[in-house]
Amino acid sequence: MFEFTLEATDGHARAGRFTTPHGTLETPVFAPVGTQATVKAASPRVLREVGATLILANTYHLYLRPGDELIRDMGGLHAFMAWDRPILTDSGGFQVFSLASNRRIDSDGVDFVSHIDGSKHRFTPEKSIRIQENLGADIIMCFDECPTPNDRTAVEAALERTHAWAVRCRAAHTRDDQALFGIVQGGIYPDLRAQSAAFLRALDFPGYAIGGLAVGETKAEMYATLEQTTPLLPADKPRYLMGVGSPEDLVHGVARGVDIFDCVLPTRVARNGAALTRQGRINIRNLKYARDPDPIEPGCTCYACTTFSRAYIRHLIKAEEILAHNLLTLHNIHLLQTLMREMRAAILAGTFGAYAAAFLATYRPVGNPPPHPLPADLTTG
Amino acid sequence: MFEFTLEATDGHARAGRFTTPHGTLETPVFAPVGTQATVKAASPRVLREVGATLILANTYHLYLRPGDELIRDMGGLHAFMAWDRPILTDSGGFQVFSLASNRRIDSDGVDFVSHIDGSKHRFTPEKSIRIQENLGADIIMCFDECPTPNDRTAVEAALERTHAWAVRCRAAHTRDDQALFGIVQGGIYPDLRAQSAAFLRALDFPGYAIGGLAVGETKAEMYATLEQTTPLLPADKPRYLMGVGSPEDLVHGVARGVDIFDCVLPTRVARNGAALTRQGRINIRNLKYARDPDPIEPGCTCYACTTFSRAYIRHLIKAEEILAHNLLTLHNIHLLQTLMREMRAAILAGTFGAYAAAFLATYRPVGNPPPHPLPADLTTG
Repeated sequence: MFEFTLEATDGHARAGRFTTPHGTLETPVFAPVGTQATVKAASPRVLREVGATLILANTYHLYLRPGDELIRDMGGLHAFMAWDRPILTDSGGFQVFSLASNRRIDSDGVDFVSHIDGSKHRFTPEKSIRIQENLGADIIMCFDECPTPNDRTAVEAALERTHAWAVRCRAAHTRDDQALFGIVQGGIYPDLRAQSAAFLRALDFPGYAIGGLAVGETKAEMYATLEQTTPLLPADKPRYLMGVGSPEDLVHGVARGVDIFDCVLPTRVARNGAALTRQGRINIRNLKYARDPDPIEPGCTCYACTTFSRAYIRHLIKAEEILAHNLLTLHNIHLLQTLMREMRAAILAGTFGAYAAAFLATYRPVGNPPPHPLPADLTTG
Repeated sequence: MFEFTLEATDGHARAGRFTTPHGTLETPVFAPVGTQATVKAASPRVLREVGATLILANTYHLYLRPGDELIRDMGGLHAFMAWDRPILTDSGGFQVFSLASNRRIDSDGVDFVSHIDGSKHRFTPEKSIRIQENLGADIIMCFDECPTPNDRTAVEAALERTHAWAVRCRAAHTRDDQALFGIVQGGIYPDLRAQSAAFLRALDFPGYAIGGLAVGETKAEMYATLEQTTPLLPADKPRYLMGVGSPEDLVHGVARGVDIFDCVLPTRVARNGAALTRQGRINIRNLKYARDPDPIEPGCTCYACTTFSRAYIRHLIKAEEILAHNLLTLHNIHLLQTLMREMRAAILAGTFGAYAAAFLATYRPVGNPPPHPLPADLTTG
């Protein structure tokens, strides 16, 4: 039911196809995040329109509200939220550690208190899998612990638990219409990443996530860890970099062999009045756009850009109108989907190195840092 | 440029066509309200999809933010908000009296303080017209005073001002691509309504609004005032009942000869989690919908109803997701547009009396009051 076909490689970059019960994903692919069974401010038909094929939903949030059993009884997540394309759920672990309070972790699982109503709960690997089976996503995740990436003692302890929990998740998982991915941890430490990759490969998962990145380390550390980790993973299985989604990180991630990404970035910055463009992030709230007749991004073919001016969208933001969120969200997801499609086409054409270099040459990341080099096999090839 | 053709009458109910520079309105017509140059939580393409042909925008709000001169410089309201069908603006008077603070009215105009930033402003009839000419709507309104409808002394004083201001508005108006409507006031007093209608008819406006209703009087008083007022207006000009839009009021209004309506109701109740249906208003937030697989309104053909369950929309409301507002707004406007189309078809077919009676027989207004009778010529005809 789950088959990953590598169609082309260009340096480390890969173009592939991953079949799931809800359709075939063309990779590399970016998944917008639908935390509470809705990608914030975007309807399913808008998501289709801008080219989204995979979305992520959060196990922690949906377990707490409306409850995974309710979603199961309503026909599962696809039916509940009217999304008939592939869905990926996380394990709930990351949110337990970042959102819940009064956490107490032991070798068996984690006790925590709901951030919504203060109620007490416990997640174990088996519980996470049961919830994810109730939700019914196509791709589900092992329950893991995601520590501070540059605290070696914490990373080592978390790694041991993550591995033990991966074995238990594998054993607990019963639905063969779901692909359970293992999650490689190990922080920024190459030996721990290697140890983790080897351990999880032995369990033969249908796909592998790279966890514990984009959580506080530098960009250089993240890219170096990726470069070191992806070659340790089987070439014939999809690789998923969790929580990454800025335009420059997508390019750098694909250049290092990542197939699947997810991130709240396009939807979250939209709600702050910011637009992603090929030149960098712009804040439409800025006074200089008050009488600007141009679209958010000249040349963009999305509904927001073909219909409205920056001046109008700035007015909507200042007036706190919901349509501002709808339009910026639509544009931001459209840009990332377009970027992914362009990267895929470039890999298939064998021109990814040139494409990535050209994109990064004109894109200014937030804070305008010095450009980070692409992997050698792309820049010299 | 503005032509009103009466196509059919059925009792007092009228079906007509009103040509404007942005297209011909088929009446009776309901205008969703786009206070700040956006119908809250609905994009222009969604408004077209649900059948909206006319929308209202608020002069007071747009004058304060982003400013009528900015909108003029951006090509006018149609271009600014990307709505190429007819637009109606109010005069700003009602909002000055209901939203602004520190109001001081004199025979020349009104001083007030902005509810947004505390800045001081003054509206006069001439200023209201200048702002509305900058905004560039197809239908614009005379600056009027809307008093408490059952305080005769206040109504008499306001009426005198409203009439003097109507003369000044008529004189100040220069754009022949805008239809300036007069506003009949007079509270619940038949003699004052008659006096107002006669005064304004003498000014020969291309259309007449009935103001000062739905602002505190009883439904019986509103319907009685309508029954008494519409026959005083010229049959060959459109009649606009301001600020009215519950399903039962639309039916009762059409039955009494009204052609144009506007109201925030469908968008406002949507943001409170309520849906309008043919049976009455329902609150989707209610626990009884938590596992309800039915759409908001079974049989409804709108995107929300053909795609999502009450259970899902309830979850969106509880989780404070923007999509809840988008979907409920879409459904509510769709219902009112459908109702207007059905009433128009019934008038053209000569079956409006039966249609209205059947609709009211199954519709339960909020508070479940005893049914109000339709005008005699419909129920006995």
